Amino acid sequence: VRVALGTGDGAILRRADDGTPRDRGLEGVVARITELAKAVIGDDHDRVAAVAMGAAGPLDPKAGVLYDPPNLVPGVVPLGPLLKTSLQLPVFLENDANVAAMGEWRFGGHGKTDNLFYITVSTGVGAGIIADGRLIQGFNATAGEIGHTVIDPNGPVCNCGAHGCVEAFCSGPSIARAARALLAEDGNSLLLDLAGGTIEAVNARTVAEAARRGDPIAVRVFHEAGDKLGIALVNVIHLLSPEIIVVGGGVSQNGELLLEPVRQRIQNTAMKLPARGVQLVTAGLRQDSGLVGALALAIDRSNSSQ
Amino acid sequence: VRVALGTGDGAILRRADDGTPRDRGLEGVVARITELAKAVIGDDHDRVAAVAMGAAGPLDPKAGVLYDPPNLVPGVVPLGPLLKTSLQLPVFLENDANVAAMGEWRFGGHGKTDNLFYITVSTGVGAGIIADGRLIQGFNATAGEIGHTVIDPNGPVCNCGAHGCVEAFCSGPSIARAARALLAEDGNSLLLDLAGGTIEAVNARTVAEAARRGDPIAVRVFHEAGDKLGIALVNVIHLLSPEIIVVGGGVSQNGELLLEPVRQRIQNTAMKLPARGVQLVTAGLRQDSGLVGALALAIDRSNSSQ
Repeated sequence: VRVALGTGDGAILRRADDGTPRDRGLEGVVARITELAKAVIGDDHDRVAAVAMGAAGPLDPKAGVLYDPPNLVPGVVPLGPLLKTSLQLPVFLENDANVAAMGEWRFGGHGKTDNLFYITVSTGVGAGIIADGRLIQGFNATAGEIGHTVIDPNGPVCNCGAHGCVEAFCSGPSIARAARALLAEDGNSLLLDLAGGTIEAVNARTVAEAARRGDPIAVRVFHEAGDKLGIALVNVIHLLSPEIIVVGGGVSQNGELLLEPVRQRIQNTAMKLPARGVQLVTAGLRQDSGLVGALALAIDRSNSSQ
Repeated sequence: VRVALGTGDGAILRRADDGTPRDRGLEGVVARITELAKAVIGDDHDRVAAVAMGAAGPLDPKAGVLYDPPNLVPGVVPLGPLLKTSLQLPVFLENDANVAAMGEWRFGGHGKTDNLFYITVSTGVGAGIIADGRLIQGFNATAGEIGHTVIDPNGPVCNCGAHGCVEAFCSGPSIARAARALLAEDGNSLLLDLAGGTIEAVNARTVAEAARRGDPIAVRVFHEAGDKLGIALVNVIHLLSPEIIVVGGGVSQNGELLLEPVRQRIQNTAMKLPARGVQLVTAGLRQDSGLVGALALAIDRSNSSQ
């Protein structure tokens, strides 16, 4: 749980974080968030306009309800209403990728645009869509699930059960899995040394490190992941015509190692007019896209609910 | 060229159509459209609020300009400004799939929704996106190019040069091509009889007719096209969370022959929450989605430009 107190221009004044308690149920989670929030609010309760929060997994932003949130508690979790009571402030809940998209849009340093697509490549792959000047939520408020768009029906099986989803190619665990599969065929690799000689210890970080040092297996795996991410983004360029594509999440911190094959794929496959002027950049706010995005969301929602 | 005079509630009062003159350049095209428009306007010029038109191919709706329009004239074509002068009325130009989406959204009989995805499956495959209550245009005003989203990088080559675009699987010509390829392997088919014994004469219509009569090759080809269309729509469900998916265009007039495998694919591959309550239907206005959509567009644009 990460919380911050901030201003309408995206500046963070105070911040705090702590682990999510796993053994005290929903009550424990609400208590922990409340405690952290009160710590950063301090004596400024009367000056706080609203609380906005991003959360992983499926949710209903209108009701402030999470559905079977990962790493929390099972079932329908009315986190918004509970925090509204405990904090005595308006609380707005939104998908974490959407919140990060808001942060990068308003405060990511990418200039003024009405069309920004934020994609996070991490343990999972998700996205937040700003189209024609607004965050897109869709009918079930699930818009942005790019991780589960299919780009190769003969591709590897994804966590969702489908074959060839973007996430099955590009997420950190998928990159590690692809590298382990190649290592099992040809164990003679710097990558294996970096993982202490154990194939099972290979993760996306060791693959990235080995790729930077020129290890052929690692280079190949990252190129393949970037190429598939490129296909996903060609599809986004064609379907949504974004001006700025922001890539965030842990895997994106490898910079051009991931983005170079993405650029190549876009250059080779996207049509001229939809791709005209499209910029591909990494997240300006890095790990804080979501935290700063919550500030943007709080401002937006409290303005539109007045 | 098809034109109509209509009212704010989507009723068509008068209509006219004629071929696009191919031998008299831009001047001839403008003259033909003007003539047809004046014919339906008649004595009602003073009561007409605006002219809206849909056109194929890349265009700039703000400037009213077409870029290398297919079947018209090459280059940058300022059709909007030219018609504004010849008709002495405000003229709004928009991509044809977007105009059809507006028609189905406002007057297609699908009920009230803020999230409708219109896809046309015809000689090409395109789409118009209504998300959170608005038509999405995007940065280059090219949003909706679903025909050129890649769903299988090892798939057949598309007109755009990429491999495995939706259009390369699902368009009328692609369906015909797939059937011809199978016929070349196994010529013993009702489909061949329907095409008068000549493989080259097989088109999407003959494939559909043969499939309705149970011809195995034709059934297989339509199932494959529907399945691939289903993958494209799974991706749309995940990326945009539409409530209503409207399938229009010539190929959609085969109804469940096309839609049944689409439904199966969505059922098997889409995630539960994004797919919750999604309806898949054919165009309520059939061939008139665009014509009626132009009425909706004229109202929208003249309201927002006041």
